[in-house]
Amino acid sequence: MDTVKAYGNLSATEDLIPLEIQRRDLLPSDVAIEILYCGVCHSDIHTARSEWGQSRYPVVPGHEIIGKVTDAGAEVTRFRRGDIVGVGCMVDSCRHCHACVEGLEQYCENGTVFTYGSRDKISGGHTYGGYSEKIVVDESFVLRIPESLDISKAGPLLCAGITTWSPLRHWNVKAGDKVGVIGLGGLGHMAIKLAHAMGAYVVMITSSPGKATDAKLLGADEVIISKDKDQMRAQANSFDFLLNTIPVAHDVDPYLKLLKRDKTMVIVGANEPLTHINAALLVRNRKNLAGSLIGGIKETQEMLDFCGEHGVLPEVEIINIQDINEAWHRVVKSDVKYRFVIDMKSLKNEKP
Amino acid sequence: MDTVKAYGNLSATEDLIPLEIQRRDLLPSDVAIEILYCGVCHSDIHTARSEWGQSRYPVVPGHEIIGKVTDAGAEVTRFRRGDIVGVGCMVDSCRHCHACVEGLEQYCENGTVFTYGSRDKISGGHTYGGYSEKIVVDESFVLRIPESLDISKAGPLLCAGITTWSPLRHWNVKAGDKVGVIGLGGLGHMAIKLAHAMGAYVVMITSSPGKATDAKLLGADEVIISKDKDQMRAQANSFDFLLNTIPVAHDVDPYLKLLKRDKTMVIVGANEPLTHINAALLVRNRKNLAGSLIGGIKETQEMLDFCGEHGVLPEVEIINIQDINEAWHRVVKSDVKYRFVIDMKSLKNEKP
Repeated sequence: MDTVKAYGNLSATEDLIPLEIQRRDLLPSDVAIEILYCGVCHSDIHTARSEWGQSRYPVVPGHEIIGKVTDAGAEVTRFRRGDIVGVGCMVDSCRHCHACVEGLEQYCENGTVFTYGSRDKISGGHTYGGYSEKIVVDESFVLRIPESLDISKAGPLLCAGITTWSPLRHWNVKAGDKVGVIGLGGLGHMAIKLAHAMGAYVVMITSSPGKATDAKLLGADEVIISKDKDQMRAQANSFDFLLNTIPVAHDVDPYLKLLKRDKTMVIVGANEPLTHINAALLVRNRKNLAGSLIGGIKETQEMLDFCGEHGVLPEVEIINIQDINEAWHRVVKSDVKYRFVIDMKSLKNEKP
Repeated sequence: MDTVKAYGNLSATEDLIPLEIQRRDLLPSDVAIEILYCGVCHSDIHTARSEWGQSRYPVVPGHEIIGKVTDAGAEVTRFRRGDIVGVGCMVDSCRHCHACVEGLEQYCENGTVFTYGSRDKISGGHTYGGYSEKIVVDESFVLRIPESLDISKAGPLLCAGITTWSPLRHWNVKAGDKVGVIGLGGLGHMAIKLAHAMGAYVVMITSSPGKATDAKLLGADEVIISKDKDQMRAQANSFDFLLNTIPVAHDVDPYLKLLKRDKTMVIVGANEPLTHINAALLVRNRKNLAGSLIGGIKETQEMLDFCGEHGVLPEVEIINIQDINEAWHRVVKSDVKYRFVIDMKSLKNEKP
């Protein structure tokens, strides 16, 4: 076992503090990774604060990990010392259920092992995430980062990127499709960039007129203000696909009205009861409402390769780990454009 | 114009009474039909009582019409005098929008003309349904009734039948699939029969233990009582398709839990806001919630031909038109197994 520095919290109501955690010794199929950068996802905060059920403490969050391979087990074939790699939201799964066999480990029927807060099959404890110096992960859950990508920015691709990529691909968004991205935050800004790079006609749908300029800079062809009923009415029944990134409970009816017959709105942000949905809107034009959770390892690699090829990267603000509590405060206020990334040198250099 | 006997109501709060209405003279593409039988659908009651928006009075309901061709316009090619035919929920549409071209006239982008209560493009008034002696309909909206079907029972195929057939086909239900039918009424009983005839493993999901025996007689392989949490939990994530025929607002979460990953629950009964839906249930296993409205003319003919071939008919109770108000009272109480059909001889023979 290896004792490493980390940041985490000890209860739902406390701030993050410096901690020491144990990382397992290398198994034959494991890769040891020195963490260079780690993105800050709203899920980190939900979990640290036990907002999605009772969390296991200490919580060490972080699932947008970029690092360098420092060691590889005897059976590792795909990585070697010095490789720049990524670890996203998952570090293990059963690997034999239908979902795993299909490459959809996030839906593992026997329980995905998430990067933090899951029961750790090896240690018997629970998993610790990327707000730390080092992580040890089975190579099957390690991603290759294309050389063309700036590693200080690439981290958020591993959660915000794949969470929006997977439904865009699964529902076959293609060049020329009219795609609406609802909500402009960490997920929404990646959705604009990815859908734009796929060749779609991208419409940003936001309640904040102030976000229009940014949305266009990110790649949106058009912006609709969702509170403007005339604008919304003018676009009724016109969208091939809607990606709904609103992170809280909301009324989905105004958005369902925008879909063409037989098309789908996919929820990736809200993880809770919706406040309103009128079944008549689904019935009258055979519309679909669906959900989607991150994405599988295979499609994550495809997304990374696509981003490498098309130069797609998130917009990030780089911080030191010592500023994490202030950063979380700003995430909750939606005061970040559009993702914080922690430069983990700041942890390495921290005085004990 | 032709003056014919009918039953209808003059305001949302009144009973149905005998009326006289006008039927148009034959246009070249029209068929005149002597109505022999007409099924009683819950929609008839909703419309007559203005429960789905302000209705136009008098309302003459009825869209499960079986009759005999008495005359055909000069351009009619598919029907001739003496043919046994059906008319369902629609009598016209624009015929050139995307939906119409795809054979989905029920989603006509320029407005489907429904069999009753729609603006009538020809007369300029509004349409009158099948609780009458006669109807005149463009042949494109007339269905052929296979000879093997008992015409006193076939009427409900034209609404309850196609409303359940269309989603079963659209979502590719096939032999061996595990299909859940939620709710056992007019729609539910047809869904069981059709899914069973398609070779699916059919599970009836009902809140009423008293309906279990009937459900099995209709073709269900298994019955789950939705109030029994253990039974519901035992079937979590196991269904390939769910057809939800519950006719009122309800909490869809217990049913969404039954679906396999990537599978769909289709709402055909409730035409109003759902009381509860947890987006997390969609997100966690990429589940889909959709709606579906009756079915197109082409697929209605396919359904009728399928029913003719497989001997599928609704269970009906035949009444005289003079008993219609009592029958409606029983429909509202769900006291019918499973559809009333009016023998229209009773109207023809009625003393003025």
